Amino acid sequence: MPRMPAPDPLSTASHAASNTASNATLSYEQAGVRYDVIDPLKVAAQRAAAATAQHLAGHGFAEVAASRGESAYVVDVGPFHLASIVECLGSKVLVADAMKALTGRSYYACIAQDTIAMAINDLVTVGATPLVVQAYWAAGGSEWFEDRERAEALVAGWRAACDHCRVAWGGGETPALAGIVESGRIDLAASCTGIVQPKERLSLGERLGHGDAIVLLASSGIHANGLSLARKLAERLPRGYLTEVAPGLDYGEALLAPTTLYSPVTEALWAAGIRVHYAANITGHGWRKLLRHPGRFTYRVHTVPPVPPVLAFIAREAGHDATEAYGTLNMGAGFALFVPAEQAEKAVTVAERCGVPAWAAGAVEAGPKRLIVEPLGVTFDADALSLR
Amino acid sequence: MPRMPAPDPLSTASHAASNTASNATLSYEQAGVRYDVIDPLKVAAQRAAAATAQHLAGHGFAEVAASRGESAYVVDVGPFHLASIVECLGSKVLVADAMKALTGRSYYACIAQDTIAMAINDLVTVGATPLVVQAYWAAGGSEWFEDRERAEALVAGWRAACDHCRVAWGGGETPALAGIVESGRIDLAASCTGIVQPKERLSLGERLGHGDAIVLLASSGIHANGLSLARKLAERLPRGYLTEVAPGLDYGEALLAPTTLYSPVTEALWAAGIRVHYAANITGHGWRKLLRHPGRFTYRVHTVPPVPPVLAFIAREAGHDATEAYGTLNMGAGFALFVPAEQAEKAVTVAERCGVPAWAAGAVEAGPKRLIVEPLGVTFDADALSLR
Repeated sequence: MPRMPAPDPLSTASHAASNTASNATLSYEQAGVRYDVIDPLKVAAQRAAAATAQHLAGHGFAEVAASRGESAYVVDVGPFHLASIVECLGSKVLVADAMKALTGRSYYACIAQDTIAMAINDLVTVGATPLVVQAYWAAGGSEWFEDRERAEALVAGWRAACDHCRVAWGGGETPALAGIVESGRIDLAASCTGIVQPKERLSLGERLGHGDAIVLLASSGIHANGLSLARKLAERLPRGYLTEVAPGLDYGEALLAPTTLYSPVTEALWAAGIRVHYAANITGHGWRKLLRHPGRFTYRVHTVPPVPPVLAFIAREAGHDATEAYGTLNMGAGFALFVPAEQAEKAVTVAERCGVPAWAAGAVEAGPKRLIVEPLGVTFDADALSLR
Repeated sequence: MPRMPAPDPLSTASHAASNTASNATLSYEQAGVRYDVIDPLKVAAQRAAAATAQHLAGHGFAEVAASRGESAYVVDVGPFHLASIVECLGSKVLVADAMKALTGRSYYACIAQDTIAMAINDLVTVGATPLVVQAYWAAGGSEWFEDRERAEALVAGWRAACDHCRVAWGGGETPALAGIVESGRIDLAASCTGIVQPKERLSLGERLGHGDAIVLLASSGIHANGLSLARKLAERLPRGYLTEVAPGLDYGEALLAPTTLYSPVTEALWAAGIRVHYAANITGHGWRKLLRHPGRFTYRVHTVPPVPPVLAFIAREAGHDATEAYGTLNMGAGFALFVPAEQAEKAVTVAERCGVPAWAAGAVEAGPKRLIVEPLGVTFDADALSLR
């Protein structure tokens, strides 16, 4: 179950402050996400799911077992690999709804891009080219669609994101789920199917090794992870989402910057001859996702990307030190690529030609499983991330 | 957008009674589903989605255009076709939750099968073999998973349905969406990816012709369509879900019979040499789904399957005549196959060997687009179903 939430030992351990005290620090669990409760289900589901892989043999195919626990599920279907995923946007719609009430504007074109990014940015980590996206738009009632400006923004943003990623929008579902989804709200998700072709493009990490370079790709802001925390913070700000986080930039506006879509970069890298050994989409757990690979390596980062104003603001307001901030939020790096050292600079050039700032930010070394972020004096050990 | 809801002219036209009058008839719109509001969005989304198909050429592939408007989206990826879909369960969880409160039992193993059936039964209509299912379990909060019996039933039922259909459970999402999904509720969906191999197995209807036989496969009950109506009826029954619909069978219990999974039948039919020309999953719009094929044919049904007690009960209590009942509910036929006349009896035998009762129930004829259900004296004209 690649995306089933994982335990979050760091933030549970480090904070006991109440989230009602206005100047208290605010951890992810205090913002309402309880990994301890979801986890036993996740383990049971992972075991049950793994046991079903045997069925593929009956069709003449086989699971790529290394994809269990990774960001997308991969099946060897003969001439190429098939990759698939379903991803939820999460609570970012609540920020869009709050900002609509404050500004009168619809942010659903951005929200559509966020939703597609959740699926596509995960799918490409395994080396897949995304081909088809399906829309899952579950509204609290038919009346959600009566706001034509909002509904049209959702459609236009969805299409634009598909165009940007060169995927076909296959179809979808627009159920009206009164009694399940709250009135006036919408639960957005996307499924995505792609292929890994040629098969050697698979980047599940077998080739990751000492000496590989870590290339970080810029994020556009918070993307779609950390929003529970961000919303909780808004509640205790006197001006809420209208608080300035940079000159002329409101908190809500900044939160709603759409998630960067990374598939144009991964496609361009392949076309340019870059061999990605492994990739991590930096979502929940922030930079701890750099520890995602199951192997035993030390990741040493010497260059830290500039921090988007909205993330610096959240870290400051939540009272996070660098460990908690980088262990929770993307802090300016939305995606990590692990490539041969001699290809790192070329990878940076290719990404920037796609409009995505990038940094040859560090290296993979022999050593205990650990992430060392040198400029910050921060270290995350092996137990900082448990996704499997 | 295969599954975006379509207008429902029959039931809007035929009822003006208030749903508060306890003996009044009850149409689908009165039960809270308003197709008129969703529809303009559906049209805009369909157009935007269709325009994205061009991107597949950039990857060396092409959409199978006839799959637009069908139950799953199909892409020609060279050696075979790729089919994909995302499907929502809908409001059947509300019946499970109500019955849990009344009986103390968890029905989530059944609900899991329903959710997978929504995706798989649609995917197989195009001739695809389902390979991978992804789970989308969006709860109103982490506490949904604290009911271990319920969570374990969901996992066990999901696995059992995957085993029955011989698909791999690839992974999924279990977001906790407080503020979006109602507290104590869960929004369930499944995505499914499959392949059409060999390509001539594609059953998008090019081969449908006069003289083909209509084979109907038995449903297990209401499946997962018509639940808004069924729930509304429960509200006006003095004993609600505990009303007997047959000796020893409660209404709620009967509603929760899990949806029949049809992929074992479609796989067995192919293995037995049956050439399915077209297939329709009988879900929303009931038997009007027999008019799904875009061509101009008359469908004459001479044999009507036995009606499950729960559907006879709903039709009676809602005051539906045969036209409204068969135009809304599956009435005992959950899936329709259109096969060469000389293969009809063999198809019935193969289906029954899979444990699914089946009937060679009618024939495709030259004539205006129309469904004639002879034993009932019911006719549905071309305008009874508008899905494209």
